[in-house]
Amino acid sequence: MNTYEKYINARVKNKSILCLGLDTSLDKLPEHLPQNTTGMLDFNRRIIESTQDYVCAYKINFAFYEEFGVEGFDILKKTIETIPSDIVIIADAKRGDIGNTSLSYAKAVFEYFKTDSITVNAYMGYDCVEPFLSFKDKLIFILALTSNKGAFDFQHLITDSKPLFRHVIEKAMNWGSKENVGFVVGATQAKFLADIRSYCDYPLLIPGIGTQGGSISETMNANRNYPAIINVSRDIIYASSGTDFDLRAAEKAAYYKNLLIHP
Amino acid sequence: MNTYEKYINARVKNKSILCLGLDTSLDKLPEHLPQNTTGMLDFNRRIIESTQDYVCAYKINFAFYEEFGVEGFDILKKTIETIPSDIVIIADAKRGDIGNTSLSYAKAVFEYFKTDSITVNAYMGYDCVEPFLSFKDKLIFILALTSNKGAFDFQHLITDSKPLFRHVIEKAMNWGSKENVGFVVGATQAKFLADIRSYCDYPLLIPGIGTQGGSISETMNANRNYPAIINVSRDIIYASSGTDFDLRAAEKAAYYKNLLIHP
Repeated sequence: MNTYEKYINARVKNKSILCLGLDTSLDKLPEHLPQNTTGMLDFNRRIIESTQDYVCAYKINFAFYEEFGVEGFDILKKTIETIPSDIVIIADAKRGDIGNTSLSYAKAVFEYFKTDSITVNAYMGYDCVEPFLSFKDKLIFILALTSNKGAFDFQHLITDSKPLFRHVIEKAMNWGSKENVGFVVGATQAKFLADIRSYCDYPLLIPGIGTQGGSISETMNANRNYPAIINVSRDIIYASSGTDFDLRAAEKAAYYKNLLIHP
Repeated sequence: MNTYEKYINARVKNKSILCLGLDTSLDKLPEHLPQNTTGMLDFNRRIIESTQDYVCAYKINFAFYEEFGVEGFDILKKTIETIPSDIVIIADAKRGDIGNTSLSYAKAVFEYFKTDSITVNAYMGYDCVEPFLSFKDKLIFILALTSNKGAFDFQHLITDSKPLFRHVIEKAMNWGSKENVGFVVGATQAKFLADIRSYCDYPLLIPGIGTQGGSISETMNANRNYPAIINVSRDIIYASSGTDFDLRAAEKAAYYKNLLIHP
């Protein structure tokens, strides 16, 4: 089963297009947990255990683990091993380099960490993305229009009447199929989402809901008939800083899951 | 002393603008070394010991270590600890994400791994680069015009009569100064290098010499009066696969060092 099929199955089983982002940060851990990487792993395990029926995917933000070097990579691997095999695991790593280097990054996320999917930065073009695509059963999400303010620095530059992000999307659609290529488009860019759907029916990974303030209704309307994975991170995992943090996170995940069901 | 000053000092001391890229790959290790991460660390230590008088910087390609997960990060840290404190250490990691995430990446490379410099992908704009720049004494190399074929997919798209890579360079020059912002421009793009030097006097990190085939003379001519760090990786570290690999690498490093001295 490839990642795309796994996503479809998880979406059906849990009636959810919610992806939970494990942006676990030491300085936001509940006080009663050890304030170190062991505490971060405890936190992740309890969050995963309590939320796994409400999501179709978990997104792991590699930066928050790399910050702790060897120990960080150790708990990252152990966190991933805790995730049920029928839920999609997205390595949010935003990698991309020349061919032989991208291949090493692909081996890191797919062979060592055993994730199903990765976010990739395509500024360096096709040969930087191809090594990821060579893992045929994986789903490669290419950064198109990101959720942050800086998206307006370069992604909207117009060439031949089209913004850069559209050049990225249209070119990269030819690098694979709907089953192994997708795009990252921020929910904070909802007014562009509907337009993107006029020329792209590929899977979208959509961050920016929750703390970042993206519009749920606009995002939902734009994606009614298309494959989408909508990510929420901090607003769920930090729903409570008490000993009940996992239960509160589960409630918040259930809340978002239900908001993201088309009527 | 900030990284820029460290670069100037190392350049004077060793009369060298050569950066040696530690693109250490398990399948290219000399046969007599252990064929595992221990062998990779042995290899790096001997290469660093034999070449440290011929370089101004070492560039560490993170991908080649991440591929081995926890063990990879362990030897990456130990490799960095072997590098003399007066030689610049560049984390070739090509990171970039929204603000709080980029900050974690910056902490990983600057606080945990203790490198002096990093390569950053600025597709996501200013707020993705700013957390790296907040480490004031570091030197941030932003991808502009890369050495690979895929550079022609997006980096040359023209907006307002200027290619995307020039928009990146001109905008990012305003994000910092010559002492903390630099750009990656491939030597395989030598015909564009001279033009880039007409509007950018910031430090350039120039890969693409050696195995990738960039022109040394064109690269040297374009950078005669400007700060540049010219990287060679595989052509030096794999100069020999015998027990004399470190001596042959030193000879090759000395050869490149001398080629890169302006007459």
